[in-house]
Amino acid sequence: MANKYLFTPGPTPVPEQVVQRMSEPIIYHRSKEFREIFARVNGYLQTLFQTKQPVMTLTSSGTGGMEAIIVNLFSAGDKVISVNAGKFGERWSAIGKSYGLNVVEIKIPWGETVAVPQIIEALSIHPDTQGVLLTHCETSTGTTTDVKSVAEVVQKYSNALVIVDGISAIGALEFRFDEWGIDACVTASQKGLMIPPGLTFIALSNRAEQSALVSTLPKYYFDLNKSLIAYENNDTPWTPAITLVRGLEKSLQMLTAEGMGNVWMRHERISKILHEGLTGLGLKIFSKNPSFCVTAVFLPDGIEWGNFNSQLLSEHNIIIAPGQAEYFGKIFRIAHIGNIDDSNIKIILSAIEIILGRMHDERTKREIQ
Amino acid sequence: MANKYLFTPGPTPVPEQVVQRMSEPIIYHRSKEFREIFARVNGYLQTLFQTKQPVMTLTSSGTGGMEAIIVNLFSAGDKVISVNAGKFGERWSAIGKSYGLNVVEIKIPWGETVAVPQIIEALSIHPDTQGVLLTHCETSTGTTTDVKSVAEVVQKYSNALVIVDGISAIGALEFRFDEWGIDACVTASQKGLMIPPGLTFIALSNRAEQSALVSTLPKYYFDLNKSLIAYENNDTPWTPAITLVRGLEKSLQMLTAEGMGNVWMRHERISKILHEGLTGLGLKIFSKNPSFCVTAVFLPDGIEWGNFNSQLLSEHNIIIAPGQAEYFGKIFRIAHIGNIDDSNIKIILSAIEIILGRMHDERTKREIQ
Repeated sequence: MANKYLFTPGPTPVPEQVVQRMSEPIIYHRSKEFREIFARVNGYLQTLFQTKQPVMTLTSSGTGGMEAIIVNLFSAGDKVISVNAGKFGERWSAIGKSYGLNVVEIKIPWGETVAVPQIIEALSIHPDTQGVLLTHCETSTGTTTDVKSVAEVVQKYSNALVIVDGISAIGALEFRFDEWGIDACVTASQKGLMIPPGLTFIALSNRAEQSALVSTLPKYYFDLNKSLIAYENNDTPWTPAITLVRGLEKSLQMLTAEGMGNVWMRHERISKILHEGLTGLGLKIFSKNPSFCVTAVFLPDGIEWGNFNSQLLSEHNIIIAPGQAEYFGKIFRIAHIGNIDDSNIKIILSAIEIILGRMHDERTKREIQ
Repeated sequence: MANKYLFTPGPTPVPEQVVQRMSEPIIYHRSKEFREIFARVNGYLQTLFQTKQPVMTLTSSGTGGMEAIIVNLFSAGDKVISVNAGKFGERWSAIGKSYGLNVVEIKIPWGETVAVPQIIEALSIHPDTQGVLLTHCETSTGTTTDVKSVAEVVQKYSNALVIVDGISAIGALEFRFDEWGIDACVTASQKGLMIPPGLTFIALSNRAEQSALVSTLPKYYFDLNKSLIAYENNDTPWTPAITLVRGLEKSLQMLTAEGMGNVWMRHERISKILHEGLTGLGLKIFSKNPSFCVTAVFLPDGIEWGNFNSQLLSEHNIIIAPGQAEYFGKIFRIAHIGNIDDSNIKIILSAIEIILGRMHDERTKREIQ
């Protein structure tokens, strides 16, 4: 039984200390003991988001958290600008349309990112925009959106709420909810937070809280007004995923002890080592603005995804992610989020070098014969 | 550090074997390994529900599962009969109203259960009823609904869908989805399934699946049509709570090895021992139709809840649940669901005997002085 190395953009590897915490006897969530844990978690989450606002914890995947933002901040017919530069931007649009929002889409080719003038133009054509939906790290393409600059122009040219999918970015990329003037941000447990999937986290600005009071879209489980009330007592409206909250206390303690600035720098450094290594092996990075969370790489000519992937798994115990939608079989994706350090990067670079080298040799042999 | 004894109606104690399974290294959910686990889990879930229909697994608390049923089977304005005999019946009504359903409520006093003629009468007054919402075990009062008999008359007198909240009942009370003609049933992970909270499970009949195709209520995360499609490939539309699914494989293996008939009988037997013991201590059971899952008990005159509860916790490491809403301070609730056997019942009965005896002695002393 060899160790397996998980380089998937969720779940990410769970530290042993977190596993231990989650293995302790389960506790009742309507108890002093749980509320004390949750109070500490809530404090850490504010550091993670760099905010003084409440960060609410909901039991669902990140997609549920995205939906919670839509159904709480808007009403049917409201106009939102959705930046769609990949599978997760597309999801913002799909959720908005499911709830009858008037979704104006800025469609960006996969691997590219929205430019600030495109936002300014869209806002000038649609001055009645009530929200701008962004994806901090577009996991499907390994691309970072310049959330800070976009937020700045949205604030300058409109009253629209700035809404960020930070699902694969929070805990990896620099993010400052209050300072950048973000109105709503969602993340999930199985990425930078280094715990298993099952929890999603949402911060709302004061303006967004006001919107939540007047939104008329139907909701119950994802009603953030209920969550905000419960939050005041370090509680949740519904039974939370207790073991994940316990693991979270440990993982957030680890992240805040390292310091958010150091955590962000570690992700940047590791990602740059990986990029250099891949380029050195003759591989081409897919994104024009590569993220420090996920690296999407073109499969070289003549290398078939299934074959490449199964060699990584069977010989090196390495699990990576395929390209999605039209990029399946054309790119592969390596996540480097959370509990990852330089040694992981060495392991995957060396494995790719071995496999590509052998595949190249075999091809050369076939060509000679 | 003494062991703690959890007698709360969720979470229930998690078996050591399940904890071990959940502590194994996390795996990627879009993998052959996970799909094989999920296929086995799906088979076990059918045995648990006694159905040949798919049982879908969603990442949320049970309340999210209830909402999923409402938003998938109905459209705004649809009429449903909601049996409200406690906090969880009330929740069915609240979710229905949140989504604009025409909710006709049969209000039953707490501790009592709906009688079949009440259902017949409501259906005759409202022949356009499209669904009847039931709570198999009303956890707030420790009362069982005769789901089988109610389902029978609903089918005889109407075309309404029979919908069951089986959240604290499934895996404890006899339940036969197919044989009883149930159209939708929801349960959650932290009760009879003996794993931590975070997952909810839904079975739909063929008729209910047809309703899901024409429902016009807005939905995205809880769209069961998406879940049904993913289910065919032993997959989920969104990232599932992977560690909980792994624990679930183990707990369902344990339950199906014991045999559902034996599991139901064990809950009945244990519950009867507890009822006899409590009655023997001079205590009065709250419910007129006590469930085999949760026992609600009147606090005796002169015994204050906070005092009683804190003695159970500090001296005996026992955690029970208070009365809810207007019954807070008037009743207490002991759950006996899941990983519970005769020895647990002895432990709690002996603790209650000691505490009540001492409280009684102290009161007598005060009265003499």
